[in-house]
Amino acid sequence: MEFNNLPKNAIIREVCPRDGFQSVKEFIPTEKKIEFINAMLATGVKEMEITSFVSPKAIPQLADAKDVLPAVKAANPGVEFTALVPNLKGAEGALAAGADVLNIVFSCSESHNMANIRRTVEQSLAGMDDIIALARGKAKICVSMATSFMCPFEGRMDPERVKMLIGKVREKGVDIITLAETIGTCTPKDFTETLRVVKPALEGIPAYLHIHNTYGFAAMNVKCALDEGFNKFDSAIGGLGGCPFAPGAAGNAATEDLVYLMQSMGVETGLDPLKLVAVARSLKDYGLKTMGSLCASAFGKPKPEIPQQK
Amino acid sequence: MEFNNLPKNAIIREVCPRDGFQSVKEFIPTEKKIEFINAMLATGVKEMEITSFVSPKAIPQLADAKDVLPAVKAANPGVEFTALVPNLKGAEGALAAGADVLNIVFSCSESHNMANIRRTVEQSLAGMDDIIALARGKAKICVSMATSFMCPFEGRMDPERVKMLIGKVREKGVDIITLAETIGTCTPKDFTETLRVVKPALEGIPAYLHIHNTYGFAAMNVKCALDEGFNKFDSAIGGLGGCPFAPGAAGNAATEDLVYLMQSMGVETGLDPLKLVAVARSLKDYGLKTMGSLCASAFGKPKPEIPQQK
Repeated sequence: MEFNNLPKNAIIREVCPRDGFQSVKEFIPTEKKIEFINAMLATGVKEMEITSFVSPKAIPQLADAKDVLPAVKAANPGVEFTALVPNLKGAEGALAAGADVLNIVFSCSESHNMANIRRTVEQSLAGMDDIIALARGKAKICVSMATSFMCPFEGRMDPERVKMLIGKVREKGVDIITLAETIGTCTPKDFTETLRVVKPALEGIPAYLHIHNTYGFAAMNVKCALDEGFNKFDSAIGGLGGCPFAPGAAGNAATEDLVYLMQSMGVETGLDPLKLVAVARSLKDYGLKTMGSLCASAFGKPKPEIPQQK
Repeated sequence: MEFNNLPKNAIIREVCPRDGFQSVKEFIPTEKKIEFINAMLATGVKEMEITSFVSPKAIPQLADAKDVLPAVKAANPGVEFTALVPNLKGAEGALAAGADVLNIVFSCSESHNMANIRRTVEQSLAGMDDIIALARGKAKICVSMATSFMCPFEGRMDPERVKMLIGKVREKGVDIITLAETIGTCTPKDFTETLRVVKPALEGIPAYLHIHNTYGFAAMNVKCALDEGFNKFDSAIGGLGGCPFAPGAAGNAATEDLVYLMQSMGVETGLDPLKLVAVARSLKDYGLKTMGSLCASAFGKPKPEIPQQK
């Protein structure tokens, strides 16, 4: 494995407050949530997907979106806040609350899109036009393409289909694209292959990768992405997160693990793994199931003393 | 990341019955242990570190070494069985029980060797001469060099020191060398650097890598090793294992994860990840804490049905 020719910097978009907290069974009280998020931002995070403006019936854990975003934003100038919006109503709420980026999600796979959003891919693509029109001039638009690598129902996603869909999304004049390895089962070889196929279609637009860790490949897939010149990643402190339609799927790549890995290869993120681990451990203390390796290890704790010869 | 120029085949030496079972608090009854081991061998395992001939006071979990080895060996012809031997008495026991390979362990780091074996490295090197003399002509000798990459007390191990120690071990005329990433914290870049430095010293002798997964780098470090032409690995079904002197350290690389990864890159191991996961899950049913990613995921279970539109 080679470690030269890597990007000098990488951007981490912290998604724990959205992807992580929505996968927690119990509602985290708003005050506690804001406290966690402020602690996350104190690690140096400059981009965050903070919540989802979705029906509280669908995701009660994020029912306080309209309170959390303005409170955190006021306390953290200079951070770019992304909000997931499933529809026009959500977009209105996100804009009213001050979101800097609206994130629209659809799945590359028809079956997963139907399972997740109850629409065909064509319906999803058409449906985002109103949101984009509403947001124009008010916020950036990010489109997240779920199952860009693997689908829980169909298996490996054809990279040519992903490339074609990127083209369709770009025709709409969006600002950011995210390719999501939604279920965390893509092998590094397949992951690399898809990136090589789709890269030309992403020329000139910020492209984020959102990687889950079900089969333990998240760190290696990040290395694969860096090798291909990608340097923007979603990740979640503590490795929180999940996918409702992927039984046994694990959480996101853990921010602390990615930052430590990148630091070891000279890729600067501006984040401090020690601080990240401390925040991740504090989530654990609140009963949240963390899945990051560093968080579970003795990382950052005092080195053991050498046992003395008896 | 590149996936060409990888070895066509790799050897897995299954270490769960030794490194895994010794790290389990409760004694696994001998009959159950033999049943587990036979199930592991039925996945296609051809090399196994089956037990340790150590004082039952030190490691009561393996007190039945002299019963387990002959029973399993009789039932599984053609498999090469390695037994860890801490001293001459252990070597005598292992030879009497029919071990094909005696495994002698010392640590590259003085502090870890003292903590683990209560000897200086020089004393350990001198102490293995009697064992080697005893075993000559009766069994192969493997020397495992713990903390070849990272030491829990001293941090990064100097690759030049590891290379020097390989030279000292080879002067004794041993048959196999194992380099162990004992505490599972070595970054892929450092791991690769050490392999590049020591590789010339390993010319002409089978060299195994024993990799723990504390920081989640085990799979990536295996890829690094394959890239450098190494193709012999220790691993433990279910990712069991540990190190008594590395608080927070995780288990071994999980055999099922490594085999799946290698299969995805065209590296043949002769093992079937589906069968391995089934065995790993059976360990879990017995209350053993498995740490492999595939074992924890829905791997091998039926694909979810596509939820129907309401």
